[in-house]
Amino acid sequence: MNVLTTVSTNILARLDALATVSESHDGLTRRYLTTQHRQANDLVGEWMASAGMSVHQDAVGNIIGRYEGQDAGAPALIIGSHLDTVVMAGKYDGMLGVVTAIACVNSLYERGIRLPFAIEVVGFADEEGIRFQSTYLGSRAIAGTFNQNLLDARDVDGISMADALRTFGLNPDRIGEAAHASEDVVGYLEIHIEQGPVLESEEQSVGVVTAIAGATRLTVAVQGVAGHAGTVPMGHRQDALLAASECALAVEDVAQKRVNVVGTVGRMTVEPGAANVVPGLVTFTIDLRADVDDKRRDALAELNERIQEIAARRSVEISAQTVHEAPSVGCAPWIVKQIEAAVEAQVGRIVRLPSGAGHDAAAMSDLTDVGMIFVRCGGGVSHNPDETITEEDASAGARLLLNVIENFKPEA
Amino acid sequence: MNVLTTVSTNILARLDALATVSESHDGLTRRYLTTQHRQANDLVGEWMASAGMSVHQDAVGNIIGRYEGQDAGAPALIIGSHLDTVVMAGKYDGMLGVVTAIACVNSLYERGIRLPFAIEVVGFADEEGIRFQSTYLGSRAIAGTFNQNLLDARDVDGISMADALRTFGLNPDRIGEAAHASEDVVGYLEIHIEQGPVLESEEQSVGVVTAIAGATRLTVAVQGVAGHAGTVPMGHRQDALLAASECALAVEDVAQKRVNVVGTVGRMTVEPGAANVVPGLVTFTIDLRADVDDKRRDALAELNERIQEIAARRSVEISAQTVHEAPSVGCAPWIVKQIEAAVEAQVGRIVRLPSGAGHDAAAMSDLTDVGMIFVRCGGGVSHNPDETITEEDASAGARLLLNVIENFKPEA
Repeated sequence: MNVLTTVSTNILARLDALATVSESHDGLTRRYLTTQHRQANDLVGEWMASAGMSVHQDAVGNIIGRYEGQDAGAPALIIGSHLDTVVMAGKYDGMLGVVTAIACVNSLYERGIRLPFAIEVVGFADEEGIRFQSTYLGSRAIAGTFNQNLLDARDVDGISMADALRTFGLNPDRIGEAAHASEDVVGYLEIHIEQGPVLESEEQSVGVVTAIAGATRLTVAVQGVAGHAGTVPMGHRQDALLAASECALAVEDVAQKRVNVVGTVGRMTVEPGAANVVPGLVTFTIDLRADVDDKRRDALAELNERIQEIAARRSVEISAQTVHEAPSVGCAPWIVKQIEAAVEAQVGRIVRLPSGAGHDAAAMSDLTDVGMIFVRCGGGVSHNPDETITEEDASAGARLLLNVIENFKPEA
Repeated sequence: MNVLTTVSTNILARLDALATVSESHDGLTRRYLTTQHRQANDLVGEWMASAGMSVHQDAVGNIIGRYEGQDAGAPALIIGSHLDTVVMAGKYDGMLGVVTAIACVNSLYERGIRLPFAIEVVGFADEEGIRFQSTYLGSRAIAGTFNQNLLDARDVDGISMADALRTFGLNPDRIGEAAHASEDVVGYLEIHIEQGPVLESEEQSVGVVTAIAGATRLTVAVQGVAGHAGTVPMGHRQDALLAASECALAVEDVAQKRVNVVGTVGRMTVEPGAANVVPGLVTFTIDLRADVDDKRRDALAELNERIQEIAARRSVEISAQTVHEAPSVGCAPWIVKQIEAAVEAQVGRIVRLPSGAGHDAAAMSDLTDVGMIFVRCGGGVSHNPDETITEEDASAGARLLLNVIENFKPEA
């Protein structure tokens, strides 16, 4: 464990170094196929090489380091996370997983340990989807589910993904070559900051992810009747905002009474939006997530009933449109069991939690079975320059991941 | 009654003529001290003169026609409403009262009737307060409550009210001369469209106004904690929008359970305002009106308690700031009684209602006792080019006002 303790001090230093590779001066911004993407890949590639890995960049821009097992060319345990960021990001979302995985391989390498399987550490090129409004570009390419139509997608400057790939030195026609065959893979692991407050409130440095939540996003329009705030008596009103307020509270209630379901109204606009006018039109979003798809569908059905009841009672029209839908991805029980055994050995108590946010593991599940470890972050804050983790938690995460890797038994 | 029936047909034609005097091509826009204000005063002045009145424009830009009583120089019953409009207004708000009053005087004049008091018909220069963001400029000048500091107020083009008065041909130093002495006035009457749906739903052409509601306007800020819509479990949230939603519903409930109280949340903004982020900050307005000030204060006190309870229960901070407060103005019981007698004689059933909107009568109440008549308007729509009234209702309003005038008994 001494080796790893040293390496984990190194983890925070390396994350600080990566954080200097940014498009923005304040906060960290590193979008897909930018100069900063290239610089991050170079830096991460050096660290991979110094950890005894052979390094290459694949056709979509992922940086991959391979550490051979006892037999060269053996199927690989893939361990990855992403190197791209949102705009004004923190230093840990994604990058912690890549840097920690390299630290673990480095520990094996320094101790001369070879396992019955190879390890491939992947720094995914684009998970956040900021530049081309489509997520999981790197992990989908490896999983073989990359959508070729996205090559025509354009960024805010009108540059197509195909052109951006060419400028980066990649050939858009060859993205298919990034795909892995499932027989070459024994599983996928990812370590990531929680981005939520559960581990902090449970006073645990690490947690075991059970599933990546499925999500439905709706936009809802409430059409009432605008009127003069002074002259229309309460009983004559068809106030769109009051109906929307009841809908927001129904979203909360429907989520609250179910385990591992979250529901959010994050955006709301009120028209005409004057202090002395009864609102005539309100539009808002609903974001509903659950670890199990049936639970989400059940919550949506109840929500729909309650919204219809609100509309009828308040004499307003409410129409909802589904704008996004993603199924949940369960972590493989056989991998979860191995992670839990390692957590039990290391810290005694096991905290299990679903991930409400999406991760590369979700895309990788199309290729292989996946497992995830969460590391506590300060205040649950993420997608923000104020993202923090402690050195102790980074260390605990690295030790746990190393333990899982060293004891990893591919499914028979 | 034949005379008045003819005249009331004329009322709608005159309102159509006034509506052509507009700053905007679509919809009617006529702000204070514009060329269109001058043109409207000229037109109305001609109608006043042809109804046997001596006409003058006062120091603030009101157009005034005086019809002497049996004795020249007798105290006057003032009958007025406003000639200015909001932006993109309808044709009836304000103007109906001026044109109807002239029609009534014309009827007296044609029949050679002189009353024991004079009548002064006033077309107020500015009630809406659109140009200098301050209402009742015309009626306050006559009531002697004009705020001289407003002469420095500037319109969107940076023109001060003082300069605008000079350009219009008026001397800002002499506005005080517009003030009437209370001993020269026996009362104030105003006929106005309802701007609400009550008379329409009561199937009555006219109604008796009991009071002009007092109003309190608040801006409220709810400070919660923003968070990731996927990763923050429901029990960990301090969602500003859910707290604001409960506040909006509390406003409704507090108003709804009181007679003649209305409460409205008309504006609401949500930050950061992304579908996948739990709202951290919500600001909204509360507009609360009541016919009796004690009722409004009582409703506000209850609302404040409920908002504090919501804040405590949801662990958010809610701060409210009063940005506007106007006391209610009761119509004088002795004038209301005379109007009710006329309504009873004319249509049998009396509908009494408070005015939720402000009117010149509110400002005039500082000078003399006031009474108001409402005329039904289509769908309660006002401040909108779609404002409508029927010829029958215009006629009913004119006959009622004439009846009130002819039988008017000044308070002993």
